[in-house]
Amino acid sequence: MNAELRNIRFAERVPGVPQSFIREILKAASDPDVISFAGGLPNPSLFPLKELEVCAGKVFQKYGHQVLQYASTEGYYPLREFISRRYHSRFGLSIPPEQILITSGSQQALDLIGKLFIQKGDQVLLERPSYLGALQSFSMFQPVFKEVSLQADGVDTAQFEYVLKSSDIRAFYTIPDFQNPSGVQYSLDKRIKTAAILKNQNTILIEDDPYGEISFTDEQLPPLYSFLPGQSIMLGSFSKIIAPGLRIGWLAANPEIIRRAVIMKQASDLHTDNLGQYILYEYLSNYNLDEHLLKIRTKYKQQRDVMLDCLETFFPSSVSYYKPSGGMFSWLILPDTITARKLLRQAVNAGILFVPGDTFYASAPDQQTLRLNFSNVDGQKMRKALRTLAAMI
Amino acid sequence: MNAELRNIRFAERVPGVPQSFIREILKAASDPDVISFAGGLPNPSLFPLKELEVCAGKVFQKYGHQVLQYASTEGYYPLREFISRRYHSRFGLSIPPEQILITSGSQQALDLIGKLFIQKGDQVLLERPSYLGALQSFSMFQPVFKEVSLQADGVDTAQFEYVLKSSDIRAFYTIPDFQNPSGVQYSLDKRIKTAAILKNQNTILIEDDPYGEISFTDEQLPPLYSFLPGQSIMLGSFSKIIAPGLRIGWLAANPEIIRRAVIMKQASDLHTDNLGQYILYEYLSNYNLDEHLLKIRTKYKQQRDVMLDCLETFFPSSVSYYKPSGGMFSWLILPDTITARKLLRQAVNAGILFVPGDTFYASAPDQQTLRLNFSNVDGQKMRKALRTLAAMI
Repeated sequence: MNAELRNIRFAERVPGVPQSFIREILKAASDPDVISFAGGLPNPSLFPLKELEVCAGKVFQKYGHQVLQYASTEGYYPLREFISRRYHSRFGLSIPPEQILITSGSQQALDLIGKLFIQKGDQVLLERPSYLGALQSFSMFQPVFKEVSLQADGVDTAQFEYVLKSSDIRAFYTIPDFQNPSGVQYSLDKRIKTAAILKNQNTILIEDDPYGEISFTDEQLPPLYSFLPGQSIMLGSFSKIIAPGLRIGWLAANPEIIRRAVIMKQASDLHTDNLGQYILYEYLSNYNLDEHLLKIRTKYKQQRDVMLDCLETFFPSSVSYYKPSGGMFSWLILPDTITARKLLRQAVNAGILFVPGDTFYASAPDQQTLRLNFSNVDGQKMRKALRTLAAMI
Repeated sequence: MNAELRNIRFAERVPGVPQSFIREILKAASDPDVISFAGGLPNPSLFPLKELEVCAGKVFQKYGHQVLQYASTEGYYPLREFISRRYHSRFGLSIPPEQILITSGSQQALDLIGKLFIQKGDQVLLERPSYLGALQSFSMFQPVFKEVSLQADGVDTAQFEYVLKSSDIRAFYTIPDFQNPSGVQYSLDKRIKTAAILKNQNTILIEDDPYGEISFTDEQLPPLYSFLPGQSIMLGSFSKIIAPGLRIGWLAANPEIIRRAVIMKQASDLHTDNLGQYILYEYLSNYNLDEHLLKIRTKYKQQRDVMLDCLETFFPSSVSYYKPSGGMFSWLILPDTITARKLLRQAVNAGILFVPGDTFYASAPDQQTLRLNFSNVDGQKMRKALRTLAAMI
C-alpha cells in the first residue's frame, strides 16, 4: 500500500460508527438457494413497476428540462402537498407543505437530525432494541446512548420516566408502529403516557414511521407527534410502500426546525434527486395509493400469518416472540441454552439466514434475540425453513 | 408559535453554517425579464433530454424491479467502471472501480469528507476565494478555516508553502480546473509545485473537479491526484456535463479511505438513487459522451467569448478580470470606488443579477470582487446587460 497512507488521520468519529452486520449478511443472501429472513427489503413483486415506468415517460413529456435541472432544497412542492394531505386524511393533522422537507430516504433525515441536535457527549435515548441505521447515523455525532426497554405494547413507561427525569436527554428516538427490529406497535395508552412524560422535558421526540401504512388491521392510532407537535420531528418514507431505490423520504417538524434542517440539507446534498420526486408524484396523483397499500398489507399479512403459525406449531415453548400487527418483522427470544449467533452459524449451513438481535442494541446486547423478516419469503419456503430452524433449537 | 419551541436547543454547529446568499438571489432570478449572471446552473438547453427519456424507458424494460430495490452503498458497479475507464482515457490513471464511490451529487462527497476528516478546531485550508458549498459543508464539522490566495494560474505557492509548514493543516480543498467562483485553472507548473509542497505534509488533498470536462482548449492537464494518489481524494460530478437534477457525483480515493467513506455514506443515506444511476449509465453506454461534451464546450466557449469581448470593450480599465479557459464563471475585481454589493443593488433595479464575491471567502471578504456566470445568458442579452453594468461603475 502507498507510503503516504501511514499519515492519514481519520476523525475521532470514524471508528465509532458500527459496521452494518446486516449488510454483510445480505451479501450472502444473494445466493438464490438461500432462504433469507435477514433482509429488511420490501417485496419487489409489489413494486408498481409498470405504473412507475408509465409515469417516468409522462414526466419527461410534461416537464422536460425542469426535471433534470437543480431544484429546491425543500423538495418538489406538489409532493410535499401530497404528504401534507395524507397526514390530514390519516390522522386529521394539519401539517402544511412548508413544514415538510423531502430527504434522500428517511436515513438522510436521521443524518440531518444528528446535525441539528447532537453534540459530542449529548445523551440520546433509544428503544431497546432500536433501528441499526439510526444507531449508525447518530453515532457520527458522538452522543452517549441511553436505552429504555421495549415491551409488547411500547416502552416501559416507568423506566422511561425515570431516565428522562434523572438525565438530560437531548432526543428520544422511537418507531411506534411495527418497529424495526421488534415489530412492536405502541398501544394508544402507551402513546398517551409516553407523550405525557415527554411533555415537560427539554427533549426532542424523533418519531420514525416507515411502516405505519403497512398495518394488518384497520385501527388507526395517532402518532406521538399529534400530542407534542412543537417538540417533535416526524419521519416518513416511500421506501417500504412504493420503492426504496428512489430514496425518497421526508421530515415533518415545526417551522423553526425545518428552516434549519433545510440549511443542513443544502450543505449535505443540495437537494434530493429531482427526477425521482417527479415520477413518484406523478404516480401518487394518477393511481390510488390506498389500493396499492391494500395489496402490500394483504400479502404481508398472509406471510405474517404463516410465520406466526410456524412459530406456534414448530417452536418449543421456551422460545417466545412478539405478534406483529403490521410491518415486516417478527422478534424471537431464545432460551438461555442457545445464543442467536450460535443458531445463525447452524442456520447458514442449512441455507437459512436471519439477523441476530444483538446488532440492535447500543450497549449490553441481548444475545438471545433475533429478527425474522416475513416480507420476502413465500409460505411454503417459510414453513420449510422455520421447521428446520425450530429443530436446531 | 408553540410554547414548547422555547426549549429547542440546536447543536452548536447549527448557526455556524452560512446561509446560501446565492440561493436567495436565485429566487429573484425566476423572473423571466431578469438577466442573470448569478446562477451556477448548467444551460438546460444542453441537457440530453430526449436521450435520457429513451434510456429511462429502456432501464425499466431491461432491469425491472432491480432498479427500484435497495442497492449497494458503493453505487452501481457498471457506472463506477465507466468512471474508472474515463480516468484512464483522459489521464492514463489506473483507478479501479473499487476505488470509486458514487455519491448523491459531489456536494455529498464534501459532507462525507467532513465526516471522515474534520474534527472541531481542525485547520482546513481553502483557496481564496473558494466554493461556497464546500464552505457550508465543512462548516458543519466546525473547522478553523485558513486561506491561501488564488492567482490567475493557481495558488500563491510561496504563501501555500508557508501556511502548510507553519500550521497543522488537516485538509486542503482545491478546484484546479475552472474554479467556482473564479474560473481559474492551475497551470502545469503550479500543479507540480503545489503537489511537491503537499508531498511530505500530513495533509489530505481534496481535489474537486466538476468543470474539468468543460474545457475550451484541447490541452489536458494532469489532476493533482496523479502526483499524490495515496494522499488525495478526487471528486467528480455528472451535474455540469449531463444533468444536475439526477444528483450523481463520485469520490475517488485509496482503498483505506473508500472503505471508511462507504460506512459514512451508509449512515448518511444508505445509497444514491438507484433509478438515476441506471438511467445515467444507460445513457453513457449508448451515446458518445465526447460528442455531447463538444456541444457544451462549443456553446459555453461562444458565450465566454462574448463576455470577454464585453469586459474588454465596455468596462473601464480600472476593472480587472480573469480570462477563464473553461467552466462557467468569470471573476471581476472592481476599483476601490465601488463595492460589489453596492453595484448589485443598482443592477437589481435594472433587472441584472450577479453574485458579489464576498460570499466566497471564509474570512475578510473582498468587497470588490464579483462572479459572472456565462453558461445561461445568450450573446445579445449578455451584451445589453454587461453594457448597462459597465455604465454603472
